[in-house]
Amino acid sequence: MSKSFKAGVAYYPEQWDKTLWKDDAIRMKKSGIEMIRIMEFAWCLIEPVEGKFDFSLFDEVVDIFSREGIKVVLGTPTATIPYWLFKKDPSCVQINSKGLPKQWGGRRSVCVNNPTFIEATIRLLNAIADHYKDNTNIIGWQLDNEIGHEGSDRCFCKNCQQKWNLWLQNKYGSIDNLNKTWGTIFWGTTYHSFDIPLPLETYGAAHNPSMLLDYSRFMSDSFVNYLNIQHDILRGKINKNQWIATDVFMPSLSNNIDIKQLTSLHDFIGLNNYPVWGDQDEPLPYYFTTLNMLYLKGLKDKPHFTVFEQFSSMQGHNCLGYLPPEKQVISWTDKAVAFGAERLFYFRWRTAPFGQEQLCYGILNNDNSDTDLLKAISNNFIEKKEVYDRIASSSSIKPKSCIAYHKDSIRILSHQYETKALYYAMNDYLQVGFEFEFTRWYAPFSIFQIPVDIKPIEDLNLSDYKIISLPFYLLCDVEFVKKLEDWVKSGGVLILSWRTGIRNKDNIAINLKLPGYFSKLAGINIDRFESLNNTKTHIKIGLFRFKVEAWADILNPVTAKVIARYSDKKKHYNGSAAISVNNSGKGKVYYIGTSLSTIGLLFLYHKIFRKEKMKPKFYGEGIESIDYLDKNNKTFKVIINNSNKNKRAFGKKLTPYSIKIKE
Amino acid sequence: MSKSFKAGVAYYPEQWDKTLWKDDAIRMKKSGIEMIRIMEFAWCLIEPVEGKFDFSLFDEVVDIFSREGIKVVLGTPTATIPYWLFKKDPSCVQINSKGLPKQWGGRRSVCVNNPTFIEATIRLLNAIADHYKDNTNIIGWQLDNEIGHEGSDRCFCKNCQQKWNLWLQNKYGSIDNLNKTWGTIFWGTTYHSFDIPLPLETYGAAHNPSMLLDYSRFMSDSFVNYLNIQHDILRGKINKNQWIATDVFMPSLSNNIDIKQLTSLHDFIGLNNYPVWGDQDEPLPYYFTTLNMLYLKGLKDKPHFTVFEQFSSMQGHNCLGYLPPEKQVISWTDKAVAFGAERLFYFRWRTAPFGQEQLCYGILNNDNSDTDLLKAISNNFIEKKEVYDRIASSSSIKPKSCIAYHKDSIRILSHQYETKALYYAMNDYLQVGFEFEFTRWYAPFSIFQIPVDIKPIEDLNLSDYKIISLPFYLLCDVEFVKKLEDWVKSGGVLILSWRTGIRNKDNIAINLKLPGYFSKLAGINIDRFESLNNTKTHIKIGLFRFKVEAWADILNPVTAKVIARYSDKKKHYNGSAAISVNNSGKGKVYYIGTSLSTIGLLFLYHKIFRKEKMKPKFYGEGIESIDYLDKNNKTFKVIINNSNKNKRAFGKKLTPYSIKIKE
Amino acid sequence: MSKSFKAGVAYYPEQWDKTLWKDDAIRMKKSGIEMIRIMEFAWCLIEPVEGKFDFSLFDEVVDIFSREGIKVVLGTPTATIPYWLFKKDPSCVQINSKGLPKQWGGRRSVCVNNPTFIEATIRLLNAIADHYKDNTNIIGWQLDNEIGHEGSDRCFCKNCQQKWNLWLQNKYGSIDNLNKTWGTIFWGTTYHSFDIPLPLETYGAAHNPSMLLDYSRFMSDSFVNYLNIQHDILRGKINKNQWIATDVFMPSLSNNIDIKQLTSLHDFIGLNNYPVWGDQDEPLPYYFTTLNMLYLKGLKDKPHFTVFEQFSSMQGHNCLGYLPPEKQVISWTDKAVAFGAERLFYFRWRTAPFGQEQLCYGILNNDNSDTDLLKAISNNFIEKKEVYDRIASSSSIKPKSCIAYHKDSIRILSHQYETKALYYAMNDYLQVGFEFEFTRWYAPFSIFQIPVDIKPIEDLNLSDYKIISLPFYLLCDVEFVKKLEDWVKSGGVLILSWRTGIRNKDNIAINLKLPGYFSKLAGINIDRFESLNNTKTHIKIGLFRFKVEAWADILNPVTAKVIARYSDKKKHYNGSAAISVNNSGKGKVYYIGTSLSTIGLLFLYHKIFRKEKMKPKFYGEGIESIDYLDKNNKTFKVIINNSNKNKRAFGKKLTPYSIKIKE
Repeated sequence: MSKSFKAGVAYYPEQWDKTLWKDDAIRMKKSGIEMIRIMEFAWCLIEPVEGKFDFSLFDEVVDIFSREGIKVVLGTPTATIPYWLFKKDPSCVQINSKGLPKQWGGRRSVCVNNPTFIEATIRLLNAIADHYKDNTNIIGWQLDNEIGHEGSDRCFCKNCQQKWNLWLQNKYGSIDNLNKTWGTIFWGTTYHSFDIPLPLETYGAAHNPSMLLDYSRFMSDSFVNYLNIQHDILRGKINKNQWIATDVFMPSLSNNIDIKQLTSLHDFIGLNNYPVWGDQDEPLPYYFTTLNMLYLKGLKDKPHFTVFEQFSSMQGHNCLGYLPPEKQVISWTDKAVAFGAERLFYFRWRTAPFGQEQLCYGILNNDNSDTDLLKAISNNFIEKKEVYDRIASSSSIKPKSCIAYHKDSIRILSHQYETKALYYAMNDYLQVGFEFEFTRWYAPFSIFQIPVDIKPIEDLNLSDYKIISLPFYLLCDVEFVKKLEDWVKSGGVLILSWRTGIRNKDNIAINLKLPGYFSKLAGINIDRFESLNNTKTHIKIGLFRFKVEAWADILNPVTAKVIARYSDKKKHYNGSAAISVNNSGKGKVYYIGTSLSTIGLLFLYHKIFRKEKMKPKFYGEGIESIDYLDKNNKTFKVIINNSNKNKRAFGKKLTPYSIKIKE
Repeated sequence: MSKSFKAGVAYYPEQWDKTLWKDDAIRMKKSGIEMIRIMEFAWCLIEPVEGKFDFSLFDEVVDIFSREGIKVVLGTPTATIPYWLFKKDPSCVQINSKGLPKQWGGRRSVCVNNPTFIEATIRLLNAIADHYKDNTNIIGWQLDNEIGHEGSDRCFCKNCQQKWNLWLQNKYGSIDNLNKTWGTIFWGTTYHSFDIPLPLETYGAAHNPSMLLDYSRFMSDSFVNYLNIQHDILRGKINKNQWIATDVFMPSLSNNIDIKQLTSLHDFIGLNNYPVWGDQDEPLPYYFTTLNMLYLKGLKDKPHFTVFEQFSSMQGHNCLGYLPPEKQVISWTDKAVAFGAERLFYFRWRTAPFGQEQLCYGILNNDNSDTDLLKAISNNFIEKKEVYDRIASSSSIKPKSCIAYHKDSIRILSHQYETKALYYAMNDYLQVGFEFEFTRWYAPFSIFQIPVDIKPIEDLNLSDYKIISLPFYLLCDVEFVKKLEDWVKSGGVLILSWRTGIRNKDNIAINLKLPGYFSKLAGINIDRFESLNNTKTHIKIGLFRFKVEAWADILNPVTAKVIARYSDKKKHYNGSAAISVNNSGKGKVYYIGTSLSTIGLLFLYHKIFRKEKMKPKFYGEGIESIDYLDKNNKTFKVIINNSNKNKRAFGKKLTPYSIKIKE
Repeated sequence: MSKSFKAGVAYYPEQWDKTLWKDDAIRMKKSGIEMIRIMEFAWCLIEPVEGKFDFSLFDEVVDIFSREGIKVVLGTPTATIPYWLFKKDPSCVQINSKGLPKQWGGRRSVCVNNPTFIEATIRLLNAIADHYKDNTNIIGWQLDNEIGHEGSDRCFCKNCQQKWNLWLQNKYGSIDNLNKTWGTIFWGTTYHSFDIPLPLETYGAAHNPSMLLDYSRFMSDSFVNYLNIQHDILRGKINKNQWIATDVFMPSLSNNIDIKQLTSLHDFIGLNNYPVWGDQDEPLPYYFTTLNMLYLKGLKDKPHFTVFEQFSSMQGHNCLGYLPPEKQVISWTDKAVAFGAERLFYFRWRTAPFGQEQLCYGILNNDNSDTDLLKAISNNFIEKKEVYDRIASSSSIKPKSCIAYHKDSIRILSHQYETKALYYAMNDYLQVGFEFEFTRWYAPFSIFQIPVDIKPIEDLNLSDYKIISLPFYLLCDVEFVKKLEDWVKSGGVLILSWRTGIRNKDNIAINLKLPGYFSKLAGINIDRFESLNNTKTHIKIGLFRFKVEAWADILNPVTAKVIARYSDKKKHYNGSAAISVNNSGKGKVYYIGTSLSTIGLLFLYHKIFRKEKMKPKFYGEGIESIDYLDKNNKTFKVIINNSNKNKRAFGKKLTPYSIKIKE
């Protein structure tokens, strides 16, 4: 663990005149920037001809910057390939879901299952590693760039086809086993061999959902394997002071790739943090950005992570949008550090004068003068050094609450979304309906200042927690349910959502009343439900009436107590139970059969948190907090005001976009 | 004709454990279910290896169910093909309108013009027929499944290309004839031979509309030929107690396939009836569903049809929607029977635990217990047995009104829709703007309880009717117009719509003033018109002002009397005639040059019906009725309340979603 | 220059019975129509077999019409090819941006870089020219039809690929030069040879914008070369009384093709003028149509142009819309003549009874009788003969104002549109956001009756003007900026827009504060800006508050005076400068850092025009005017009332849709 917070920038020396480099280094140093990340996308420079390596440019950069006291992080430049590699094997580009080839020239267009690409990667990584492994100015490595982004998490090329069939054979052993698991008898698609076509987008009718689930897992494994090749080469050679990580784009929960597996061998989690990007007219909700950091942080048992790309100036490919005021940019930095960034690289030092990111602005002005933003950033580092270092050198205080998620259930919901509320296509390749719904299950913890972990269920150490919220656990493992039962009996409080427990691990519908294995634990069963899609209805909790949306489970309480009932005369299930709580041993199980809008959420969770003596605090929208234990074993709380208004929280006054420490 | 109504379910034994079968049969019997439909989609089971047949599973099913008194309907399982057939000829999949292949794995993805598929079909049908032709437990056959659904009514593969050229040669004899009929001199696309490419979707400019019309006819013929192959094999072998039909999806008017031709050799019309499906937030308008049944019933001169799939529980592939209350599900059954279903199969007995229809729920609970719905269904059969049987054994009372349609005119309007009001893309493959407009021409008959037939013009026995509504008869046959003239003179009342008579049968514009051959009969001519698209304007009928939309013909009355005039100061044709009536002999011709919204429709048709002494009754929205003559030669009226409100009609009280008989 | 105005019609004798021709000629003559345009799309008729020509049909037409005193314009029929040519080389069709072939059968589907097509064109043009070059009844030639329309301005076929690489080699000489200019080091896409793939649409990430810019230029050159081949053959043969032009579709500013280059060898500009088309519910804004005419007229230093297709009756391929009253159609004719049409062909004489344009109505009724519109047109010619002839024989009075545009800047904005306000996809192939924004910079000149030229910057004779509005000059040539500086110093008034000066001519970002080379001249610099996309904010000019949208530059005034400031408490740049004016020598430079809505525009420009003593007149929306100098050296003003209301302007009363002359 670093003992202090370190700031850096993404730096692309190859895009600017080399006469600027030294001055850049000096200005960075002056501004509190201590690291640069370089070499991303520069494969064509370091291997201009197949097998001939030339590190002179980056050697010179490392040399110049090191002299000024700037350390260097190297990005392995595999997100785009050199022209000669494309010419050598034009079939290396991905095939999209309609069967049409992507084109060389954009990034992330090459297939990780292509043998030519893999072979070239291995040679490249060996060469880079050999060259820089003992360079003490190189402090670490970022593998590739935003793996799986921009729809690159799926491919339908011939190599994928081949590996897909092998993958299936490996997994299922016999074709009967596959047929049974997928239920191919449905629509009579029983296979006789593993020679199974990749699930190209079909026209009219859909693909077998279990095939799609396996396709998602297969693609994930392909990327994990590919990145592990890079990892293993580096790890085998580099000195132990150099770390290895990758930069994960946001949001990535509904991506085919399992980020936990992707990063399992890495020293820490790296992420890119863009609270606003492209043509957005306002930033993402602040808790959406936080949730993204907490989810990624939750993949490792460490309090800190690295932000490889932190929004500084406006960014977009073809279109721009919201211009944040400087203090909001600073606030986003504060927040990243508060939630665990021990290293943070602003994106980017200087705007590229050409190329696809001409509209991705840096922190220098066009005329190479300092922006006001750079001055603000620099002042901020001086002003907050102590705070940032203290956070970076502290350990976390384990929350008593956790929100757990299940990757395979998310995968299924990305296809069979069941309600339009779980469908939101940001563009051709990002269906992030789940991500937005998931924030609804996070928001109460955020707004009531209840510290919370976000964990995949396989990493869940039950005994750590008092409350576990487990929304959308569709594909259930009966063993895990048993563990939850024991944990509840011993005092745990479990919160379940609609659609819990509808299938087994293999995506086969459960032959029990819903919520399946959870039925007894939740003290209810469910025969009927309605998809509300984008319509709304109402529930009543006590005397108060709240809007709900997305879904309506109609609960039959068995041992559970009803907390909320539908309240809508237009619905034939008016008066039926919507939310319940069941006592089990010393614990409780809440079942929330619908999605509440904000006020309802606050009302419901306030009750829950108070009942569990979690001391919910309400300071209105915009306030977030997180607790640390410093190296002197002193606890402290970091409080952030995300809003442009003056706020009061935990007895502190917070001006707009400010941060405060409470001892 | 059956003497009694029979209920069944769609049953997929291959999807469940065989230990459940016997119990299923017993429970069905207890619930009043007397038939199962099986074997749909099971080709891979009965011909697991090319040419080797194995009927053991279905034999066992037939045996078990027969013992419990359940009769069996067999679906020919050709809507999906076995894997080995795909492997044998991977080019058997359809090519979509962009020239890209569909993929095996979904249903309806195979081309009916593919020789490998046809050959395999013939072998399969012979084998099934040989095996089950004399089995007295098999009462009938459903050919294939939802022919033409999900965009499968078009293909652009090499086999289609070849057959398309032959089809054109057959039809036109000489290429000059084709060139003249299509008017290929336009844009200089004159052909020298029948080697004419299929009309793939082009970019920018459109295809020759007459080519598209022929393409639609060609595709229809291809499907008719294919299904007739199946029919002929069965008919040649089966015993005469077994009937043959197919299940038509809804809506199918704008499908390329002419359902009348498709079903011409069948014993009766079969249809699938889903008043709500997928992500719809509410059911289709009740009269839309009724219109669909009447249109299909109108294809045969019989009062009854079969519902092969009747909505029971929620259905959807990836997304769900509206949950109907049980009594509404029962009401939809009532209505299907009321309008002519003598057999009705609920879809489906039990939910598939896997596969593409995991979200298509059955009428058992997940834990295999009876749903409340099943109980309600069962009670309903007991309670209504007498009523249902009486309807099923009655003959229809011939309505004095008819709405006639013309398939080729509908085909043209699906491409050249002329106004956005006739364009409504439900998804990539369903452009059902016509279907929704057509309900507007049906609604007045429904709401005023005027019995009405829906007939293709070629089946129209003019002398049967007092009123014929003939909307959107664009492509006119002068001989038919002459017959209509005679019929009007002898007292018929003809109702025409905007765009009547603009072309001849071959889609060549008429060189007469509009409405062309109808001009004299309607007593008007039309030089100018406006497409209102989705905007609205107004007309005045007497002192009352009504909204109109879609289109505005500007009528020049010659001998006709003006009934309505445009009333909109923003329109330069304000004050011009919009609706007219012309006396001709003892009859009358109404010309309605625009589309009225509901209140206007009611006002106008109330006048028309009263003038013709049709005794219009108005009980508000939701009430429908139909007349029968029972076997004792007693007439009776079936009245349905589609609404969730208490209603009064024909002197009867109707509770929500109820049915009543009036003697 | 003609001494009188001439009217014509688009005539397609091949689509009608030849018995009609003579009568058509007589009726035309009677109606004041003196010319026909024929032979467009008739390649298959005049070269029915490769290399065998047959002009008999058109010879007969020319003969018949000539006898009645009707002159003939020939269209070279290359917008669609004969079937035999397609069969000879099926690869002649364009490949679309996804890599899929277009299909023969629509128009404009053939690639101008295809050698088979070019060879056939050459043979065809020679044959036509030889046949008609000395025919005195042929007065002129229209080359091809609507070049670049319907997405045909881009192709990705093998021939284009080859020529693209040659074009790049020609332009850049060395690959290093290309790499440097494009900045291919970005994302590591450095090329080693000119074997560079065409920029097919990629998935996910974008193409290099400078590559797209070059692709646009390359496509333009391809079309220019192709049309020049046609031009050169004709020019080499025809007699000098025959002119050559082409018909440009609207809008064409954002088309890849540079219309100025396309028409550089032509005798005059030809254009097609459809104020409403297809499913539009109302005509385009009148000033949009005017701007289109002025922009095209501005490509030549001539006061007159030809309208090859003037809207007469409703037009559409699959859908229709607005029906203009007859006097509006006449008014559109008035306006075309007023703005410079010395020849005008109505589209079309008679409706095609078949083919893709069955819904493109002519000016005869279906029954071949005269429409009221034809009568109105005919009367109009009689009534306005003197006025039309006077305009046609006058020379223009050079405006003192000009709006200048830069094709390459428009090209860049069509991809990198930067704000959604510059993105408006009318359909798959027309992104005309720029065109609509551009009208905003024209509107003040129109509404205040300030005569204005529209010129590409390369044709700008600075000394002609007092005011130059130069919006969206992104890609700056420093030499041109210097000329503007001199011009301003000597008294010129320059109006600049947001995004001025952000790049150099090669699309490389300027390393100066914005607006780059204009910074000193404008007396401001800009560090920050926001893309407002489709949101709005406000500015204050003096005490008045106005809505603005699209973009917000935040100006730092250096020597400039602030005219407007942002006035929006929700914006952190509230109070910052939005519009400035800078004095430089005797001149002034306005910088407008945002897009004003109508009222704000009027307020601002009224000030500007008054300050410059341009005598702005305001008569409300709908009034336009233009000044001429007649052959007697008398000036006169043509005033048009585009509205359906009575108006008063320049002391004249104007009834709805009328035209007046003021001496």
